Amino acid sequence: MKLYNKSVNCDNINKNLLNIRYAVRGPILERASQIERELQKGIEKPFDSVVRANIGDCHALGQKPITFIRQVVALAACPQLMTCPDIPADAKERAAEILADCTRGSVGAYSPSAGLSLVRGRVAEYLTARDGVPASPDDVLLGSGASDLIKSVLSMFVHEKDGKPSAVMIPIPQYPLFSGTLSELGLQQADYYLDEENQWALQPRELQRSWTVASETAHVRALVVINPGNPTGQVLDRQNIEEVIRFAYEHSLFLIADEVYQENIVSKPFYSFKKVMFEMGAPYSQMELASFATCSKGWAAECGLRAAFVELVGLRPEALAALRASRAVMQCPTVLGQCVLDCVMSPPAPGSASYEQFNIERSAIHRTLCERTSAAYQVFNTIPGYSCNPIDGSMFAYPRFDVPARAQRAALDSGVSPDEFYCMQLLEQTGVCVVPGTGFGQLPGTFHFRTTILHPADEFQHMLHSIAKFHQQFLEQYS
Amino acid sequence: MKLYNKSVNCDNINKNLLNIRYAVRGPILERASQIERELQKGIEKPFDSVVRANIGDCHALGQKPITFIRQVVALAACPQLMTCPDIPADAKERAAEILADCTRGSVGAYSPSAGLSLVRGRVAEYLTARDGVPASPDDVLLGSGASDLIKSVLSMFVHEKDGKPSAVMIPIPQYPLFSGTLSELGLQQADYYLDEENQWALQPRELQRSWTVASETAHVRALVVINPGNPTGQVLDRQNIEEVIRFAYEHSLFLIADEVYQENIVSKPFYSFKKVMFEMGAPYSQMELASFATCSKGWAAECGLRAAFVELVGLRPEALAALRASRAVMQCPTVLGQCVLDCVMSPPAPGSASYEQFNIERSAIHRTLCERTSAAYQVFNTIPGYSCNPIDGSMFAYPRFDVPARAQRAALDSGVSPDEFYCMQLLEQTGVCVVPGTGFGQLPGTFHFRTTILHPADEFQHMLHSIAKFHQQFLEQYS
Repeated sequence: MKLYNKSVNCDNINKNLLNIRYAVRGPILERASQIERELQKGIEKPFDSVVRANIGDCHALGQKPITFIRQVVALAACPQLMTCPDIPADAKERAAEILADCTRGSVGAYSPSAGLSLVRGRVAEYLTARDGVPASPDDVLLGSGASDLIKSVLSMFVHEKDGKPSAVMIPIPQYPLFSGTLSELGLQQADYYLDEENQWALQPRELQRSWTVASETAHVRALVVINPGNPTGQVLDRQNIEEVIRFAYEHSLFLIADEVYQENIVSKPFYSFKKVMFEMGAPYSQMELASFATCSKGWAAECGLRAAFVELVGLRPEALAALRASRAVMQCPTVLGQCVLDCVMSPPAPGSASYEQFNIERSAIHRTLCERTSAAYQVFNTIPGYSCNPIDGSMFAYPRFDVPARAQRAALDSGVSPDEFYCMQLLEQTGVCVVPGTGFGQLPGTFHFRTTILHPADEFQHMLHSIAKFHQQFLEQYS
Repeated sequence: MKLYNKSVNCDNINKNLLNIRYAVRGPILERASQIERELQKGIEKPFDSVVRANIGDCHALGQKPITFIRQVVALAACPQLMTCPDIPADAKERAAEILADCTRGSVGAYSPSAGLSLVRGRVAEYLTARDGVPASPDDVLLGSGASDLIKSVLSMFVHEKDGKPSAVMIPIPQYPLFSGTLSELGLQQADYYLDEENQWALQPRELQRSWTVASETAHVRALVVINPGNPTGQVLDRQNIEEVIRFAYEHSLFLIADEVYQENIVSKPFYSFKKVMFEMGAPYSQMELASFATCSKGWAAECGLRAAFVELVGLRPEALAALRASRAVMQCPTVLGQCVLDCVMSPPAPGSASYEQFNIERSAIHRTLCERTSAAYQVFNTIPGYSCNPIDGSMFAYPRFDVPARAQRAALDSGVSPDEFYCMQLLEQTGVCVVPGTGFGQLPGTFHFRTTILHPADEFQHMLHSIAKFHQQFLEQYS
């Protein structure tokens, strides 16, 4: 009998899949999960539990969900509960309103592939109010998380011309969804470095350098900006955004604005790319822009419920049609996720039955963000050998730290980068699981990690203290 | 000032996106929506309302959701309702059990990217019981609908060798998710025809013909089987499945079994590819298989809640790892969808508080399926010029009909295929929206449409009657 050869092996699998790296769920998380199992088995460690600081997942860090959102979702799923006296009238009205837009009143029916018309309308109202620029529900696509939508938009650029692929410019450091998705799609990644010495500013001359280098081997088609920054936490000022828009204009680049942390801001004002583009007027207001927002971030932080949207501005109709076609094959985003988005776009208004509780909950979340960003900034700037830029927004700190030469050699010997070596040691000795800077990118010779900062107060203090103590021991060991 | 060129146009957009066709949400649905708006505006038509029969969406056709599922989802979303006296104890226990597997008890936290461990365990138990073959939770990936997972699995095959792309064999007629996704991924589609004269049987000699033709220009890597058939409604018998497995073995093909309608079967027994493969023993039991199931179909039919799984059997570890990496970048499938899947894999057991109601609801759904398949089969075989194979499963009929030569010429003149011409006329004259066979594929010179059959009884009768009457007029007009 003929020998059976497996159809898929390392030599004939889609090479792009083999190139995907996604550090946020990478080897360090695997080891953290392993340690958790070891602890459960009673294996002794210098700590009692693992502190997961690898992923921006507020509920996993103990943040409580917004009551109104969950009530609306529950009623939309189970309208039988409409008679329940414990649920306020405005939550019932909201659920009824959404159900009226679902085919035959069931969230179990497919929605249009772009999302329910009601919810896209609410998104357009939110955007109009945010920017002072009219937005249309027809330019809005809902998705099962921003990642899903970002991948769809990036897929448009897969194209070779004269033997050169398309390239997409992304910041370094960046959120590895971008590098991972560019790898999967076979697009070339064109790095531009954020200026750590100047609070992670986005320098036009660095954009130009990156574009020039990439243009030698590729057609640069799009420019990704992450604002507020992930992992870097800066919020771009208006002038900087104008510079970026002018740069994109000069080079006919499609602007991809990852603005998912727009509601996680401590004090600086947030300017959307769309607002600035339109206020700059023609010809800038005619540029192509995809701007992303999500319910996984912001005060809702409903990561597990998968809800997001993209607003597409200035696309040629044929590009929009192609994008819509590829989304239609996947049917529709989760309808209960769409309910969440509806609540986030239009939360309880002052005077409504749910307002007081909503306001208390949302204020507490914002207060925690303010406290944590300030505490992380302070502590990371007092550990010798550490430095950290001010954190204006997002939910992360991205401190820089020194790694002694001996430790760098030890890392080299074990085949990992110095920051990976450092973070793995940190995990083994303290149980704190942060993601090495290699996963996000950093200037060669500099070392960072990304940590989430929204843990409960005592856990947060314990984490900062563990890091400080570990760093001292690490320096002693390798000096 | 420099002229701004849009970055994305017809010449430089990802060509694969331009090639996507997905008839289920195509031009006929667009026209149906337009007609609905015209009716709302009071424009006179020969009918009062549009009957949407284009998509397998049971809730949109009036099927009521399973109460137990919706109660569990509502409680998982809003645990505050655990005290609600209207919800039975077993639904509360189930929700509590799921929440215990969510990080810090919130469905708003990300799950592992493969899905909650509890739910994957339930899937493995279901599969073990179904097949009498042990299944492992580690081989199961959950997704936001089967489409999402099928796309991931197909993406593995994107690979060129010696200037030849990979090809994937698909049945004709097929569900256009496959043709659409192959287009998007740039994979070659290798058609094999189902044998309409023999109740849509899958003939090994036709597989061989298709493989031979495709192998001239491509490396054939995988074989898709849709069982129960969509749009064709046949259920493969065991011997036929064995033949297919032997064929795949001979050619080292990866088996892709779309088994999403496995719970929508009238009377014939369902054999999963995995069961048959394992019962055939080595070497067949070592072949590569991806088998898909979804909560959008079956008795749950929760299309809008987006829940599905794939079981991956016999993959090399490196292939599985690559697939996992590409899924991890997308974070995780919706956790509330995972709750639905948990309920479907393990519905209320006899003796539990929810069993009686569940059993009544599920039986009614099955009874409807039996009645409709039989009624559709009968009616479509009594209209002169129509014929329809017995419908063993799924939720569709795919009747064949004659189109007079004059009508074929009229179609040609208006630049559409005869079946598209026929279905558009049907829509304009009766309001019945079915999908032309061109969208699924058919033998050249034969004409079909796909219609869903799970409408409420009166609507269903009205639809069949409208089609019969329309066909008679059509023949008179064009004979």
